[in-house]
Amino acid sequence: MATVKLWSDAEVERDARVKAVFDDIRATRKSDFVNNFWRGLAHDAALLERTWASLKAVMVAPGALDPLTKELVYIAVSTVNGCSYCVHSHTAAARAKGLTDAQHGEFLAVVGMASQTNALVTAMQIPVDPEFQVG
Amino acid sequence: MATVKLWSDAEVERDARVKAVFDDIRATRKSDFVNNFWRGLAHDAALLERTWASLKAVMVAPGALDPLTKELVYIAVSTVNGCSYCVHSHTAAARAKGLTDAQHGEFLAVVGMASQTNALVTAMQIPVDPEFQVG
Amino acid sequence: MATVKLWSDAEVERDARVKAVFDDIRATRKSDFVNNFWRGLAHDAALLERTWASLKAVMVAPGALDPLTKELVYIAVSTVNGCSYCVHSHTAAARAKGLTDAQHGEFLAVVGMASQTNALVTAMQIPVDPEFQVG
Amino acid sequence: MATVKLWSDAEVERDARVKAVFDDIRATRKSDFVNNFWRGLAHDAALLERTWASLKAVMVAPGALDPLTKELVYIAVSTVNGCSYCVHSHTAAARAKGLTDAQHGEFLAVVGMASQTNALVTAMQIPVDPEFQVG
Amino acid sequence: MATVKLWSDAEVERDARVKAVFDDIRATRKSDFVNNFWRGLAHDAALLERTWASLKAVMVAPGALDPLTKELVYIAVSTVNGCSYCVHSHTAAARAKGLTDAQHGEFLAVVGMASQTNALVTAMQIPVDPEFQVG
Amino acid sequence: MATVKLWSDAEVERDARVKAVFDDIRATRKSDFVNNFWRGLAHDAALLERTWASLKAVMVAPGALDPLTKELVYIAVSTVNGCSYCVHSHTAAARAKGLTDAQHGEFLAVVGMASQTNALVTAMQIPVDPEFQVG
Repeated sequence: MATVKLWSDAEVERDARVKAVFDDIRATRKSDFVNNFWRGLAHDAALLERTWASLKAVMVAPGALDPLTKELVYIAVSTVNGCSYCVHSHTAAARAKGLTDAQHGEFLAVVGMASQTNALVTAMQIPVDPEFQVG
Repeated sequence: MATVKLWSDAEVERDARVKAVFDDIRATRKSDFVNNFWRGLAHDAALLERTWASLKAVMVAPGALDPLTKELVYIAVSTVNGCSYCVHSHTAAARAKGLTDAQHGEFLAVVGMASQTNALVTAMQIPVDPEFQVG
Repeated sequence: MATVKLWSDAEVERDARVKAVFDDIRATRKSDFVNNFWRGLAHDAALLERTWASLKAVMVAPGALDPLTKELVYIAVSTVNGCSYCVHSHTAAARAKGLTDAQHGEFLAVVGMASQTNALVTAMQIPVDPEFQVG
Repeated sequence: MATVKLWSDAEVERDARVKAVFDDIRATRKSDFVNNFWRGLAHDAALLERTWASLKAVMVAPGALDPLTKELVYIAVSTVNGCSYCVHSHTAAARAKGLTDAQHGEFLAVVGMASQTNALVTAMQIPVDPEFQVG
Repeated sequence: MATVKLWSDAEVERDARVKAVFDDIRATRKSDFVNNFWRGLAHDAALLERTWASLKAVMVAPGALDPLTKELVYIAVSTVNGCSYCVHSHTAAARAKGLTDAQHGEFLAVVGMASQTNALVTAMQIPVDPEFQVG
Repeated sequence: MATVKLWSDAEVERDARVKAVFDDIRATRKSDFVNNFWRGLAHDAALLERTWASLKAVMVAPGALDPLTKELVYIAVSTVNGCSYCVHSHTAAARAKGLTDAQHGEFLAVVGMASQTNALVTAMQIPVDPEFQVG
């Protein structure tokens, strides 16, 4: 189905750079499961390394936003970009980080509301109020 | 600039249904300022009423997600939809609700990261892992 | 502002292929006004010819849908694609073809509603009901 | 496949608020069939109620645009948003409201044409003609 | 699965206009295989003819860009538009035109990078530098 | 206009991490000009560093695709994402790398063609031909 080959664990074992990333994914997530996204990226070790390093810095390292908020932002972006895989994987990640049904329902309401007003604003070509300008 | 007329306060005064919504916006937000979005919607009282009622239920009423998280989700959706007005108005709203520079920077990083992986996933057409399926 | 030069009438006069298209636009629309889109395309005569020929076949020639309905579909597409220019030009075209304020308000409501449910469906990853499958 | 559970009729029966909406959907559409979208929304009664109330007001109540035109606008939005489910469900709805093959072919031509010129305009960054500005 | 019927070769044989296009596709591509896109368009002969004529002029005729570059641009557009079918078909076409794994990996990196910076720019609403303005 | 402050050179001078990135941008591009995108990112040194490091690896370092092809892919993505700033900056970059008017016209034609067929495919929900599946 994919436009690239998804690497099996056996194939990963034979490439030192790819194996190092997979090892770090497993160690970081404390789980043996490595999802298909990384198996697709494995055919380009440099891209795999850069992508994992960025994801680790942005989504795993502690920061100013809590992990669940970051997952919700991730799902919101993925929804509007129409990335079915990403909606699935990050909704699963959000649930693993404690997303409740009530929070999910409210999140859906915000995503729907924003999409609706975005379309209304664009169709009406509303000019930005001076009050919203920075500096 | 807009494709509809933006109603002035004087015009709003002359339409009871529109005035009722504007009054409620002002009372709810405890501010006399009503932004251009509502002035554009004013030409269709029914759409104005429904949109404000929904926004109030979703974004103003207390719920399972904190108000700042909801604003960040709103900005994320607006960014991917390319709605300049909405990015401006909801970033201003988020700052008013306490968004710090550090949080904004981290939010931007998540939005950028998600957009990047969304594109990679779609270009590789990665199939959803069975582990991400619900039920 | 544009990434290409917009041809003036004087420049159009000096290129026979471009001039022929501009002449046909003016004759077809019974107006001397030629909007910026065509002036931008003028730097590639082949693309200009093909684009105008298609637009004429799709939007000008009589067909199974009435002209106003086609303009509304055009604005809907342009809105979701975030094409400010196109929203402006086709809303103007729709008004010239008789779009009333009431129809415009209702059109906006549909565009907003569809955008909202699109986002909800994608965020929930709703599977297609067998009842909607053709054949 | 979905990121939420789709409620069966038995589950709907056990929740009075959800049941009331499902009953109204069935009564309004004069059909026992309730599609998956509503079954996904059922886990959040408030969102379900608001969404159905809006859809009924926008798409079912008589207005200034005929029902088929509204469905075409809905499909156009859904297409550009890449919502496969929505394209399926609203194309089915349009056919039920009388969409002919000739009309569908012409609709497709408009959607394709608009998408093409949207992209050309954006890539050329064409400035809005003053003639298209409102008032 | 489709919202239109996909025409079989037998059905194509019975319609002279459609058959002429299919014959030209086969002759141009020097292959008997005609993919589903054209079978879906077959129900509207005029749209089929125009679409094939444009595709032939843009993608098949020799021009200023090499064929592989054009396929990469095509896949990039299709990725951001979330068109799964188009990503599949044009990645296959690019491979047939010589796309190597190294080139594909680098292409993916560019698509991901652009998507990331696009989102960052939009979320920050960066104004265009005067240096980038034409003329 | 932006939702973040754009750092002036004086402000950059006062932050060692930001200054190091700006110095490297200037050295790499052999130009004193640093465009607004980087001035917006300057408020988050970590995001600035990561973004510049990625851009340098993807767009500046020699690879399997020539620099002009990469710029065209970048503009294509930016166009569909509706990022006006990015279309401007990367079209300028492409011209600096030798893009001719004829190549630009052909590029526009491909972007328009792809957008058109993407929309047609999505509206018809064409299933992927087995011939396009990998492996």
